Amino acid sequence: MAADITASVPESPWWGWAPFTPGGVLPAGARQVLAERLGIDPDVEIAPPPPPATAASVPESSLGAEALGALAAAAGSGTVSQDPADRVRHAAGKHTPDLLRQRAGTPLAFPDAVVSPGARDEVAPILHACSAHGIAVVPFGGGSSVVGGVTPLRGSHSAVIALDLTRLDALISLNEVDRTATFEAGIRGPALERALADHGYTLGHIPQSHQQATLGGYAATRSAGQASTGYGAIAELITAITLETPRGQLALGGRAPASAAGPDLKHLVIGSEGTLGVITEVTVAIKPRVTHKTYGAWAFPSFEAGAAAIRALAQDGGAGDLPDVCRLSDEEETELTLAQTDGAAVRLLRRWLRARGIETPALLLGVWEGTGSDTKRRHKRAVRILKSHGGVSATTAPAEAWDRGRFGSPRLRDELLTIGVMVDTLETAATWTKLAETHTRVAEAIRSALAAGPGGAETRPAAVQGHISHVYRDGASLYYTFIAGAEADPIAQYDRVKAAANAAILAAGATITHHHAVGTEHAAMLPAEIGPLGVNVLRAVKHELDPAGIMNPGKLV
Amino acid sequence: MAADITASVPESPWWGWAPFTPGGVLPAGARQVLAERLGIDPDVEIAPPPPPATAASVPESSLGAEALGALAAAAGSGTVSQDPADRVRHAAGKHTPDLLRQRAGTPLAFPDAVVSPGARDEVAPILHACSAHGIAVVPFGGGSSVVGGVTPLRGSHSAVIALDLTRLDALISLNEVDRTATFEAGIRGPALERALADHGYTLGHIPQSHQQATLGGYAATRSAGQASTGYGAIAELITAITLETPRGQLALGGRAPASAAGPDLKHLVIGSEGTLGVITEVTVAIKPRVTHKTYGAWAFPSFEAGAAAIRALAQDGGAGDLPDVCRLSDEEETELTLAQTDGAAVRLLRRWLRARGIETPALLLGVWEGTGSDTKRRHKRAVRILKSHGGVSATTAPAEAWDRGRFGSPRLRDELLTIGVMVDTLETAATWTKLAETHTRVAEAIRSALAAGPGGAETRPAAVQGHISHVYRDGASLYYTFIAGAEADPIAQYDRVKAAANAAILAAGATITHHHAVGTEHAAMLPAEIGPLGVNVLRAVKHELDPAGIMNPGKLV
Repeated sequence: MAADITASVPESPWWGWAPFTPGGVLPAGARQVLAERLGIDPDVEIAPPPPPATAASVPESSLGAEALGALAAAAGSGTVSQDPADRVRHAAGKHTPDLLRQRAGTPLAFPDAVVSPGARDEVAPILHACSAHGIAVVPFGGGSSVVGGVTPLRGSHSAVIALDLTRLDALISLNEVDRTATFEAGIRGPALERALADHGYTLGHIPQSHQQATLGGYAATRSAGQASTGYGAIAELITAITLETPRGQLALGGRAPASAAGPDLKHLVIGSEGTLGVITEVTVAIKPRVTHKTYGAWAFPSFEAGAAAIRALAQDGGAGDLPDVCRLSDEEETELTLAQTDGAAVRLLRRWLRARGIETPALLLGVWEGTGSDTKRRHKRAVRILKSHGGVSATTAPAEAWDRGRFGSPRLRDELLTIGVMVDTLETAATWTKLAETHTRVAEAIRSALAAGPGGAETRPAAVQGHISHVYRDGASLYYTFIAGAEADPIAQYDRVKAAANAAILAAGATITHHHAVGTEHAAMLPAEIGPLGVNVLRAVKHELDPAGIMNPGKLV
Repeated sequence: MAADITASVPESPWWGWAPFTPGGVLPAGARQVLAERLGIDPDVEIAPPPPPATAASVPESSLGAEALGALAAAAGSGTVSQDPADRVRHAAGKHTPDLLRQRAGTPLAFPDAVVSPGARDEVAPILHACSAHGIAVVPFGGGSSVVGGVTPLRGSHSAVIALDLTRLDALISLNEVDRTATFEAGIRGPALERALADHGYTLGHIPQSHQQATLGGYAATRSAGQASTGYGAIAELITAITLETPRGQLALGGRAPASAAGPDLKHLVIGSEGTLGVITEVTVAIKPRVTHKTYGAWAFPSFEAGAAAIRALAQDGGAGDLPDVCRLSDEEETELTLAQTDGAAVRLLRRWLRARGIETPALLLGVWEGTGSDTKRRHKRAVRILKSHGGVSATTAPAEAWDRGRFGSPRLRDELLTIGVMVDTLETAATWTKLAETHTRVAEAIRSALAAGPGGAETRPAAVQGHISHVYRDGASLYYTFIAGAEADPIAQYDRVKAAANAAILAAGATITHHHAVGTEHAAMLPAEIGPLGVNVLRAVKHELDPAGIMNPGKLV
């Protein structure tokens, strides 16, 4: 049973990813592993969340009556809220330090108001009002940024609003001949997939943030879905995009499937993170709804052997042999996954692998998605290549388990933070040539940084697990989860780990982010990635479209 | 026998595409068709070209001694030539009006010198010297532009140089693990393919201009190869690119197969047409050298039926079913192709098709390329879909003939222009929804414009043939060849046709160019394509990288 990608979920609370579940959602296996490896009390009670912030804890809005009036007039059918609960909920994204600060009642900033347009044509007047009154604008979709992308910084302006776009959630048109669909940008992942499923289609872009994130957010952050190996990342799926800027509307693409009419400006909008304007409409390529899935899992003697196998599949396999979802865990992640899983089956698997000389396996999961028996044929062809690279079948159960639990991790984080565990993820990507060294350097940097706590507690237990989750012909992504007991200052602990990982990523020549985007978190590393002249180009574009600098100050550049 | 894509060809002469072949290269079948349909004397003698321009016909260079000295010092191992023959050869690209003007000795402009750097690190000092002395720079690769992209306009500057990059033609590195290769940008198509073939690889980007064009030119114009349906257009093949600008070097990509570190600035460089700087290095994805080709040709009852078949193949076929080369001729092009081909076989084919109810066929050609029997399997799967859409096999001969003659058309144009025939091509692309209407409108616009000659000679015979040559999931390209007797003022005749076609393309909502680029030819149409604000964004980027505006004035924006 796969996860239902059209299932609606409640809106995120201000303090975490999902509403509190009495008794918690941490499985017994996970609790046991935490106890054994990290010394966390397995019987610790999962407390309900603290009460939401009230007017008393939220500073007064900086917006004067005149500015508020102008905003209300511009918003038309939209709303302008100064309700403390709204302002708290739009004070941060879902970055671990964000959530720690939210829980401590000390977010970096609060928006002075939350403006929610009710129609696309209200966005331009709102931007005009903000320009006229010197108000910074932070576009806010699902609010799932893990890089500080929605932190309501005001820059040099006197006030800042969160521009909540989630009421702009309509399917504008669906073109079955071109296999494209145009949506308002504020539609969330499940609603988008439900709208397409009603017509027999899917977008197939399903990041872990899918249940909260919006299409506009996918575009603004150059997002990649968990099945991007098969469907392509969002930059490949977008055929047209509309950006409302303080200087007017930029409507790009849609005339033709490809063009040589100068540089492709869609790629300036994709990844612009709200700094150039507000994405209001997006047209995406769609595919027939998935009716068939073929699952597979293989154990390899090592992470390197598994990586070599998927590289062969990507480069020498036939078209479509590579699974749509292709994930290779390193030895530590594989071990932790097996340790959390039902005893008898895992013992059998371990014995089976040991008999084949595999003591510390690296587990590869694959899902081939489609509309018919072709998924089986693609899987069969892939198996030949995987086996020839030393892969040993590990039944389909691990891949099916992944598909069932694919949206679960952010909920687990909520609870781990509650019980005093530091947990977060970070990611990069590298060409195949640099992949092994990047993986070693980054994992070691995280491990060392966690070990080197205050007072030099070098034996502090920690888990650092990594996997490849997005595969390309010339390289792959690397995704890390790190878990340790929280220090007295968990934000300092987090910052120490992140700084070490960033330094290792840059030293290895990899990219500072494969799909989490830049936000505030990676802005200092952008010059290393695109050069100072590249940063100047982005600034020149911003100055052209947003001369007053009201759009999402402090992010990206 | 397929065309040898590594075969070197002589450099283009100043008056046409290829050196003169005594007796000409027009096949007998083509001469017969020209005589029957357009009233061209079938026995007209193919004259040798006029003598090359000499010092007498070339205006004096505007470069003073000081500027020349600075250029020579900057060029280092490179050369600075004021030789009239060099200046004539760099006075124009291969646009039909360009060639007509070249032959008449009246090119739009001459470069004041031709500067040919001998090493990549000489480009930056040359740009500095040009900035310091107010000299415009026109990057010149293969000189194969058909949109005026290399016309040596000086804008507001006192002089202009052609920066000939063809000495920068080295394979810098080849990475077999990542399957990428880095070249200097001035390498021509055949030399690039030969360098890769030596290591067992191919780029697979083979536009009709392949024998003259350079990799830097491919990148600068967002080129698409004839097999782009399979390999992807150049924008998809480039993994890293270096641009030398008057403000310094922009080195983008290469760290990772994908990144979310802000907008992908590679897409600002690709398609920049020399207006932002000089592309000096390009890294491309490579594939194993082609050892197997499977050919196929099918006749459909109409162009629309054929288009529906390839749309089904693109959207519902398995991965790889679509042939790497996929070309569907309209009824007129099919008829003209058959009319030029050997009688007996064609008579048999016509009878075979007529027996199946196909009187005015539209011919689809496909080539599946690869390294093994997979090409046969892909072909076999495709045949099922093509047949189910009414396709009737027309043997493999037409596809093999296309592959043999794929580089021949520009040579034929040389001769047709010589014997007083107006011939040129133009192209667009549209989404499937708009494709049929775009095709009808554009073909009709060209036909009407040709018919409406001076004095209203409405019965002037003309051939207007079209085909789809690049196929995508959401649409396809449309490529037209028009042939008619030349009027007394052939450039006015050309301009009339082009203006009519452009208007039809924009009215149909299609793109002004799929792969010929913008240059001077389409610059006026760019605001319709990307909006006035899009043009402003390009200008802002240009101003940042080229504040003095020395780079390729008058092109793109």
